[in-house]
Amino acid sequence: MTFKATVLTLYPDMFPGPLGQSLSGRAHENGLWQLETSQIREFATDKHRSVDDTPAGGGAGMVLRADILAKAIDAATGEGDQRPRILMSPRGKPFTQAKAHELAEGPGAIIVCGRFEGVDQRVIDGRDLEEISIGDYILSGGEIGAITMLDAIVRLIPGVMGNMESADTESFETGLLEHPHYTRPAEFEGRGIPEVLTSGNHKRIAEWRQSEAERLTMERRPDLWRRYIDGQEEV
Amino acid sequence: MTFKATVLTLYPDMFPGPLGQSLSGRAHENGLWQLETSQIREFATDKHRSVDDTPAGGGAGMVLRADILAKAIDAATGEGDQRPRILMSPRGKPFTQAKAHELAEGPGAIIVCGRFEGVDQRVIDGRDLEEISIGDYILSGGEIGAITMLDAIVRLIPGVMGNMESADTESFETGLLEHPHYTRPAEFEGRGIPEVLTSGNHKRIAEWRQSEAERLTMERRPDLWRRYIDGQEEV
Repeated sequence: MTFKATVLTLYPDMFPGPLGQSLSGRAHENGLWQLETSQIREFATDKHRSVDDTPAGGGAGMVLRADILAKAIDAATGEGDQRPRILMSPRGKPFTQAKAHELAEGPGAIIVCGRFEGVDQRVIDGRDLEEISIGDYILSGGEIGAITMLDAIVRLIPGVMGNMESADTESFETGLLEHPHYTRPAEFEGRGIPEVLTSGNHKRIAEWRQSEAERLTMERRPDLWRRYIDGQEEV
Repeated sequence: MTFKATVLTLYPDMFPGPLGQSLSGRAHENGLWQLETSQIREFATDKHRSVDDTPAGGGAGMVLRADILAKAIDAATGEGDQRPRILMSPRGKPFTQAKAHELAEGPGAIIVCGRFEGVDQRVIDGRDLEEISIGDYILSGGEIGAITMLDAIVRLIPGVMGNMESADTESFETGLLEHPHYTRPAEFEGRGIPEVLTSGNHKRIAEWRQSEAERLTMERRPDLWRRYIDGQEEV
């Protein structure tokens, strides 16, 4: 089973975009995941191929129509298709590293990219779309959210990352932000490398990294820190 | 003054990517913002053009060298350049809509895209890089983070969004997630549009939207809801 993403969008030319290069691009070339796009506009029914209409109750912007989007979703859904149906939306549940792992272990995803003011609520309900947000900010559409989410997922698919790119100690995998990194040269503009890192003492190095990760998380992300402490206490 | 982004990256071909289309793409064509990339590898000093080295203290992955990245940053910084220098990093401060507004009102940004295991801490300190994260997940590099951040910023630059695309009632602008949307047709697979929205009573419609926004925020994002309530009490 290969992870397969089907992206429903009004801008199919945005794909693969940055996903066509580097880690995700090589993984795609090597057949470790598949990507297809579906142009929502092809499911329009009038001669202007319109997909949106004014919001019921008035107000700014346009709303993506339930009937047209439903047809696009149904056409993207194969028989017995077990893939989750996701709507990229600022109202959605925040995307996390845990969610990236969950999706990377599954068969793929059908991803709807919202545009305009929003999507008619009835297609969200009627097609059981899971709303996911990549962060607390507004993008011009769901496409960049889909690209972001797919990049986070694809690197976790078995075989995509080599040993050199191991994910174990990264931020969020341990519940902490990652410790600072240093490499050659030994001195940069009068700044050295912390002595412990060149000591060769693996126990002291591990302790220093853990305490730096804890310090950074405490300082920068009290929300993550509280969750980390709560998790430690439960164990 | 036009907003100018300079992106330092090992993958300049990822740009403009999705930023070259739709709202950001049109704004770029119309001269409302500028984008340039700088290939970090051009600042390498050895014949292999290497930019990274193994982490001091051991461990997986490679670390982007401080000296080479510093040269790339210095070359990108014009005389009297007031632009903030940003490093896309999962250890960074979470990017928010408020930050998008702040940056959109400024002269632009110098954006460093991290890669590999991380960036040598001494260039973060020595060049006063502001670490920003677009969310609690790991990407294959900072490029997609930079694209995401720029898309959120560019749409807020004056003249980019038309009246039809007004931002006032969007999620995060009010401190609440946005209310559900509906549009024609009046019935979709047996589901109607909430009666209040077709009542023509603007006061009732505004009240319904506010109460739905509050309900959604409470249900989905208790963190935002607490902040919203705290903000209301302060007023």
